[in-house]
Amino acid sequence: MSGIVVQNIERADPSVIDGLAASGVATVHEAQGRTGLLAPYMRPIYAGARIAGSAITISAPPGDNWMVHVAIEQLKAGDILVLAPTSPCTDGYFGDLLATSAQARGCRGLIIDAGVRDVRDLTQMNFPVWSRAVHGQGTVKATLGSVNVPVVCANALINPGDVVIADDDGVCVVPRSDAASVLEKARAREANEESKRQRLAAGELGLDMYDMRGKLAEMGLKYV
Amino acid sequence: MSGIVVQNIERADPSVIDGLAASGVATVHEAQGRTGLLAPYMRPIYAGARIAGSAITISAPPGDNWMVHVAIEQLKAGDILVLAPTSPCTDGYFGDLLATSAQARGCRGLIIDAGVRDVRDLTQMNFPVWSRAVHGQGTVKATLGSVNVPVVCANALINPGDVVIADDDGVCVVPRSDAASVLEKARAREANEESKRQRLAAGELGLDMYDMRGKLAEMGLKYV
Amino acid sequence: MSGIVVQNIERADPSVIDGLAASGVATVHEAQGRTGLLAPYMRPIYAGARIAGSAITISAPPGDNWMVHVAIEQLKAGDILVLAPTSPCTDGYFGDLLATSAQARGCRGLIIDAGVRDVRDLTQMNFPVWSRAVHGQGTVKATLGSVNVPVVCANALINPGDVVIADDDGVCVVPRSDAASVLEKARAREANEESKRQRLAAGELGLDMYDMRGKLAEMGLKYV
Amino acid sequence: MSGIVVQNIERADPSVIDGLAASGVATVHEAQGRTGLLAPYMRPIYAGARIAGSAITISAPPGDNWMVHVAIEQLKAGDILVLAPTSPCTDGYFGDLLATSAQARGCRGLIIDAGVRDVRDLTQMNFPVWSRAVHGQGTVKATLGSVNVPVVCANALINPGDVVIADDDGVCVVPRSDAASVLEKARAREANEESKRQRLAAGELGLDMYDMRGKLAEMGLKYV
Amino acid sequence: MSGIVVQNIERADPSVIDGLAASGVATVHEAQGRTGLLAPYMRPIYAGARIAGSAITISAPPGDNWMVHVAIEQLKAGDILVLAPTSPCTDGYFGDLLATSAQARGCRGLIIDAGVRDVRDLTQMNFPVWSRAVHGQGTVKATLGSVNVPVVCANALINPGDVVIADDDGVCVVPRSDAASVLEKARAREANEESKRQRLAAGELGLDMYDMRGKLAEMGLKYV
Amino acid sequence: MSGIVVQNIERADPSVIDGLAASGVATVHEAQGRTGLLAPYMRPIYAGARIAGSAITISAPPGDNWMVHVAIEQLKAGDILVLAPTSPCTDGYFGDLLATSAQARGCRGLIIDAGVRDVRDLTQMNFPVWSRAVHGQGTVKATLGSVNVPVVCANALINPGDVVIADDDGVCVVPRSDAASVLEKARAREANEESKRQRLAAGELGLDMYDMRGKLAEMGLKYV
Repeated sequence: MSGIVVQNIERADPSVIDGLAASGVATVHEAQGRTGLLAPYMRPIYAGARIAGSAITISAPPGDNWMVHVAIEQLKAGDILVLAPTSPCTDGYFGDLLATSAQARGCRGLIIDAGVRDVRDLTQMNFPVWSRAVHGQGTVKATLGSVNVPVVCANALINPGDVVIADDDGVCVVPRSDAASVLEKARAREANEESKRQRLAAGELGLDMYDMRGKLAEMGLKYV
Repeated sequence: MSGIVVQNIERADPSVIDGLAASGVATVHEAQGRTGLLAPYMRPIYAGARIAGSAITISAPPGDNWMVHVAIEQLKAGDILVLAPTSPCTDGYFGDLLATSAQARGCRGLIIDAGVRDVRDLTQMNFPVWSRAVHGQGTVKATLGSVNVPVVCANALINPGDVVIADDDGVCVVPRSDAASVLEKARAREANEESKRQRLAAGELGLDMYDMRGKLAEMGLKYV
Repeated sequence: MSGIVVQNIERADPSVIDGLAASGVATVHEAQGRTGLLAPYMRPIYAGARIAGSAITISAPPGDNWMVHVAIEQLKAGDILVLAPTSPCTDGYFGDLLATSAQARGCRGLIIDAGVRDVRDLTQMNFPVWSRAVHGQGTVKATLGSVNVPVVCANALINPGDVVIADDDGVCVVPRSDAASVLEKARAREANEESKRQRLAAGELGLDMYDMRGKLAEMGLKYV
Repeated sequence: MSGIVVQNIERADPSVIDGLAASGVATVHEAQGRTGLLAPYMRPIYAGARIAGSAITISAPPGDNWMVHVAIEQLKAGDILVLAPTSPCTDGYFGDLLATSAQARGCRGLIIDAGVRDVRDLTQMNFPVWSRAVHGQGTVKATLGSVNVPVVCANALINPGDVVIADDDGVCVVPRSDAASVLEKARAREANEESKRQRLAAGELGLDMYDMRGKLAEMGLKYV
Repeated sequence: MSGIVVQNIERADPSVIDGLAASGVATVHEAQGRTGLLAPYMRPIYAGARIAGSAITISAPPGDNWMVHVAIEQLKAGDILVLAPTSPCTDGYFGDLLATSAQARGCRGLIIDAGVRDVRDLTQMNFPVWSRAVHGQGTVKATLGSVNVPVVCANALINPGDVVIADDDGVCVVPRSDAASVLEKARAREANEESKRQRLAAGELGLDMYDMRGKLAEMGLKYV
Repeated sequence: MSGIVVQNIERADPSVIDGLAASGVATVHEAQGRTGLLAPYMRPIYAGARIAGSAITISAPPGDNWMVHVAIEQLKAGDILVLAPTSPCTDGYFGDLLATSAQARGCRGLIIDAGVRDVRDLTQMNFPVWSRAVHGQGTVKATLGSVNVPVVCANALINPGDVVIADDDGVCVVPRSDAASVLEKARAREANEESKRQRLAAGELGLDMYDMRGKLAEMGLKYV
């Protein structure tokens, strides 16, 4: 089941991917029906990055980063590496040398349900990472895994070529075939949000703007 | 027991509240006998904020933020929203639209024993949040909770109108009726600390300044 | 077994210590055979610090920081305080007054498998801390511990005088007697890394640079 | 704020307390509007115990069990000890000697948001404990706490004299003044449950028995 | 994306399912290439149960068990309920009434990445559950989820009709279409194990039986 | 640093080891000054076992159990295997085949800061294990570790030949050279405890038996 590298994967349209990045994690996840988020323990190594890209997936043994080298060859510009260990692990699979190599091939960042290291260097390189841990712990290169197979990463299913969006709110995955329609819904949502923001900023209450008072009373809310 | 909104709550004196903010969490908690701290997992979304305000409390079902809209109507300038879910939850109950609305009504920040999202926007808005998690996960509006009832938030009891102080060291609650006396003790403590700081900076040892050597010897401390 | 202060400890050569700081945690830990790292939950209170120093160790009861005062007297310029509680604890053992005192004696930072407070002040003082928690919770001074005895801190054995290195990737300990040889290996590793970095930045693949393709094929890796 | 022992507390009616024990945690918590549960990490040291009693509360420093001795003097037959540390702690505050003493005074069990030890002996003595941890770690007797003051234990507020119910599903607290009315609701609930159980056991679906199909369809549920 | 109930799902051959139950979790997971395990926090409510069955999957909102009622109608004899909340939750979605209903329809057990309650009753009923938590906390019936859609449960992908095996070692999923071949490999493995067990019991070393000494020496293992 | 097997280690006197087993974890840890306990997450796979033995230590890579085979050859009757992974791991390194082999050589049990599997079989074999996790997840045999080197296991330092005691309260280590004197203190403590137990069972208060009232009053305890 492991020891496989899938070389040709399909990717979503680049303009759709960039559109999803612009919308951000919270909006995209709402736009696809509140689905697709990775677990909340996935945190960025530095604040402020917001990226989207096509997933190059890596299934790796605990404490073994051999497959990262294999995966880097499969990267195209605009891709994001997504690594899921086959059992829970916090080791630092990835550091500045691998980031240099990935960035040279156009990789936009890394999503890893494990650890990362050299985070000061990665920050200076502007190579964003979302991880379960930051740890200096190194890994070996002794056992095979797979590249571009479906993985479950931080409790979310990610297929190779799916669009991954990541920012300060976490990480969200959109199935490749849904990317265009999710973007459309995300943009509709954003258009809608701007006018709401202005009304709320002017002091209007959500209770009135969303017309909630009747429903709340009907449900039995009591003011005392 | 749920489905109640208490509209008129008492608040502490604004100058006392601002005094407690100036003292900060560590000092205030010492001043009231080392009590009142929320659990250490409550962390700020950005460093450097230090606030105090009167608690508008929210008891909310897991994954349901309907009551936040209800609570915002109860805010007065200088208040802080305090949300406790009725069972453990990391969902993002609160984002930039709610923050816009709360800020428009003078709210100073949010304390939430759950998740928050849109943290990049909240940071830009200078709306501080202390939370258990940051997560893009959205919520529904289907079930009632209550506003301005006593809540246990991150293992601390908070009554509506209590003074909540929050900074980089965490979050502390001071019962409304104790606020003035706690502030007095906090100030005495601070006055006392400044001279100690100078003596320590000049190289004097705490062992000498606090006259600890005798007691340590009596307890049996051995230098080898 | 507790209640002991060892006053004369041996330290590594200062230039070796500074060399290890320059190499950083990830490199040093690789150089000594991927050993010496503290647990990944040990995180810095602010990003960007990188220090090394001789360990002044503290074994302290839960919620009791009395021994920190005792330890500060034992500090020499270039030392690092290392505190391990005798059972798990997240209390804030250390704040700005203790940091002022420690810094006045030349202390470079604190490694604590418990909590720290006044982190805003510590950041402004440029006094770095790696800790399990940040919490305002204060402590008492009622029970003896020991200073400069071997401690297990965050799952690593640290002897007084061992060299502790800490940066954004975590914390690593090098036994005092190994410090010079580990530094030598770390420098060899770094020299080697720079040329690799340039080749990778130029687009060469790790698969080729490290000559991995044959071994991967032999292990059974299949490209599909 | 600490260093206080309240000697005379009110208790609920013994027959009400025993009635609540018979209903069990899940039913009682539903009967009072799904409130009162302690955090899910509170687990019994052995399966099968189900108790209720009046809370004798203990607020104790981390790693210091002095106040347990003080609290035992306050026990009356049918009481339950409830210990909350003033900051997170997993030490074994309580073992077979304290259990012997408490049991001699009619104590029905211990609820402790910390650790317990001698669990083999406690099991043989039939002295049930619900705790956050089991750990051999001993404690000191150096610092005061308080007895019979309100405590927040595992995220629930418990006042002295409140009724605490504990079984394999966890721990629930019922305010003393609500005990009789909650028992009444619990019994109504149980009466109602028995007939439901029989209908479900006979193969009737909850969808039909609770008449859910219309509401589900109205909400948009689609069968495909 | 939610609000869907898929009524007709395919199931694996009953004799294959029963064969996989007999092999158990550890063997089955090895037989399919060390894949398919759910996260290690999934623990049985009582020791000794070992089951396998076809998954009826439930995607449910946090703290809302409405879909369990819907799922029970879809059960056939030999099935197992598998519930994944849409965000992390420890509430007790399932208790003795639901178990009575499920058992009446031939359900063999429940796998739930959340909480369960009435565990004493479930144990007496011989209805096994593997869960993330045991908690009395009840849930509401207010928001739709889905039944028999793919879910990610405790970091594993489970499709409706997949074979789920559970015992004291945890929970493993086998894709429906792989079930027969995995069973074959599991049986081969077991046949092989029995002779090994006898040789090891007789004192033969694994080093010799598996012929490891040469490879260890070649890798550089040194006996001192 | 890895890849070493130390073949000749010294062990404590068998009668001392058996004496420590009889005293149990809580008593032994008190007898050596409240030190030596492993972290509280180390739990037995079944209740009621109480063992002591000489530690055969294993330092193993994450997810790689090759060294267990090497360690088994080093076992003598009465020994206990102690495994510490080089980085955090919950994989099931050990199951019924390895237990059969270890038991055939007189091994009394396993202490593992990782996972174990086949726990139903191990329970039936009466082979006790204290572990961080129970998980079916298998491991590989690809990378060297070491046997009989000092390890830090669950935050405690264990040298080969140290005496390890384990029971329902957790796991404690006694340095080999201290074993006899610790046993002596443990027995003195037990002799002392029996008379205390009888007095407490007869209703005498610890407050009186330990003569605490004066000290409590002096510290400021107030009865109200």
